[in-house]
Amino acid sequence: MTETRPTIGIVGGGQLGQMLTLAALPLGFQVIVVDPTENCPAAQVGAVQIRADLYDPDALRELGRRADYVTIEIEHIDAATLESLAAEGVKVNPTPGTIRLIQDKLGQKQFLADAGVPVADFAELPDAEAGLRLMEKFGGAMIVKTRLGAYDGRGNMVVRTPGELKNAFKRFAGQPLYAEKLVEFSAELAVMVARGAKGEVATYAAAQTRHERNICVETLTPAPTGAAAVKAAHELAKRVAGLLEGAGMFGIEMFLTASGYVLVNEIAPRVHNSGHYTLGGSRTSQFEQHIRAITGLPLGETTLVAPAVAMVNLLGEGNHTAAVRGLAGALAIPGVRVHIYGKSKTKIDRKMGHITALGDSLEEARIRAHKARKELSI
Amino acid sequence: MTETRPTIGIVGGGQLGQMLTLAALPLGFQVIVVDPTENCPAAQVGAVQIRADLYDPDALRELGRRADYVTIEIEHIDAATLESLAAEGVKVNPTPGTIRLIQDKLGQKQFLADAGVPVADFAELPDAEAGLRLMEKFGGAMIVKTRLGAYDGRGNMVVRTPGELKNAFKRFAGQPLYAEKLVEFSAELAVMVARGAKGEVATYAAAQTRHERNICVETLTPAPTGAAAVKAAHELAKRVAGLLEGAGMFGIEMFLTASGYVLVNEIAPRVHNSGHYTLGGSRTSQFEQHIRAITGLPLGETTLVAPAVAMVNLLGEGNHTAAVRGLAGALAIPGVRVHIYGKSKTKIDRKMGHITALGDSLEEARIRAHKARKELSI
Repeated sequence: MTETRPTIGIVGGGQLGQMLTLAALPLGFQVIVVDPTENCPAAQVGAVQIRADLYDPDALRELGRRADYVTIEIEHIDAATLESLAAEGVKVNPTPGTIRLIQDKLGQKQFLADAGVPVADFAELPDAEAGLRLMEKFGGAMIVKTRLGAYDGRGNMVVRTPGELKNAFKRFAGQPLYAEKLVEFSAELAVMVARGAKGEVATYAAAQTRHERNICVETLTPAPTGAAAVKAAHELAKRVAGLLEGAGMFGIEMFLTASGYVLVNEIAPRVHNSGHYTLGGSRTSQFEQHIRAITGLPLGETTLVAPAVAMVNLLGEGNHTAAVRGLAGALAIPGVRVHIYGKSKTKIDRKMGHITALGDSLEEARIRAHKARKELSI
Repeated sequence: MTETRPTIGIVGGGQLGQMLTLAALPLGFQVIVVDPTENCPAAQVGAVQIRADLYDPDALRELGRRADYVTIEIEHIDAATLESLAAEGVKVNPTPGTIRLIQDKLGQKQFLADAGVPVADFAELPDAEAGLRLMEKFGGAMIVKTRLGAYDGRGNMVVRTPGELKNAFKRFAGQPLYAEKLVEFSAELAVMVARGAKGEVATYAAAQTRHERNICVETLTPAPTGAAAVKAAHELAKRVAGLLEGAGMFGIEMFLTASGYVLVNEIAPRVHNSGHYTLGGSRTSQFEQHIRAITGLPLGETTLVAPAVAMVNLLGEGNHTAAVRGLAGALAIPGVRVHIYGKSKTKIDRKMGHITALGDSLEEARIRAHKARKELSI
């Protein structure tokens, strides 16, 4: 069969790769993903799968040969091979340089601080002795973080006592670490920023995010933190995205401090959980927007389609074969949309799906989303 | 791999089957389709394909064995086998009886007339002699239609002279025919009606549709035909859907006559082109709604997400390998969404994709959609 469709290659075929695939196919693209899991979520919705580890250079090179555009759903991947692909002329977005920058969380923080972006106090954490000094400097409480490979709460530990510090060094033994002052925040905010191939920028409505065990559990849009904070968050997010290279979505996670300042916490150089609400909640989802951006298409409108949208994650609550229950109860609630990722095994705190709820007010949307969450199990 | 997901079987895997699949997978279903085309549109987005003709009883029986719920994307299929599946307890929606009723266009018309639903004058057309009498009775102009297997303009011919009548009999030789008075309409209207498993009903905003060569080329929502006509169309559509058995979407196509009456033209017992605007234009697309209905889930909200939505079909303009061009130009227009079906061959008047455009006014939406259409080729 003659094939004339341009191909998008994605490193990673989990839920983000799946939702990118669902956006890409109706635009006339083909999708190939690299993912180690048999019948990964993206493959279930029509992506061709190269079954391999995300650090497998051969698999990434094969992806580069077969795809016209290469992107990522996660930054913990083999950046060096993407760099060589980019050098050979493959269109890789975000740029491998940006991916590499984000991979090292300490480097990321230093980069932001050097650019004058407000961030929480931080420092390298070479050993326990330095840790004790930092704890004192940071006012008694800090977060110990692994520099590499951390996401969804893996690689983070709050430390308030010398005993806890010792435990952190035990838990993260052998991994390069850094420490951050524990910020007393009144809210967490996230702004999704899209950058097109020609540098044009589109931002989405700010979301107030809530984390439990360092995993996003809920987002509320528009963020109910007051106009000034939202404006500051938008400006900061645009500024940060402007510091990075490459086209695509960027998720900028921020803290709103008790005293009203906005600090940048983390950058995701890709579609992000705090932007899931845009799928059904905005005129252009973050997934379609990312596909548009990395393929050189114009950006779409980011307008909300309802006064308010709440998103709640469907996290696993046990370890067993996945089976959705309670869908009828959830979908009986007005404005509710359910997205199941198709992972075959439920694990504790694994992201198995998400729920969005539209509402005429944020309170209505929030209540609907949580009510739906209570109905569902997987 | 243990598989716990319920399975939806669809007879037909073209664009409607594709958009049903795109709605079903994120709800946690698996999808299997029967379709004769290699790598049919539904298979491209993750449906398992049984490659067979839609009248192949073995294939439909296999579908019945493998699926928990069976539905259709087109009514020109082997209804007898679906009847036997339903008799064996397979959940088939719409019911095979409804499918059989719709298959025979003359029977459909008679059914509506018997129920007191306003329709254009019609009669069986056994031979040319009867045709001449009917032409006179119908005021000189009528449409000759094949009773079976007709859609998208195939099997329809307007007849105004004895010579044209002769041509119709030549063209449709051997097929059972009927004739309908040519209605002088001021507008064509369509209302999508959803019926849930418990008989609950949800209607979508009426669309004004426009046909060329008997193929839908454009829909405008909300229909700009005045409140009285829209109300009459809604009431009529609900009444007609209420006459039919089974859960799912029903598309009711109507004429608004010059004198202000609404007549029913045709029924589609399934998702329908005049409801494509709901994908991105309504809170619940007709595709998700159909999946909800046939699986016994509650119906979703049908509210529009913008003041106005226009849909324009992307019909083939030649016969060649499909290749999308002009996507950037189309997507540069605000509010525009493009859906390409992934058919490998373009044919004249073949439905290759569609465009929807949101707008603050119908005029704005319409202009945007047509502008996007002009940018695109395939």
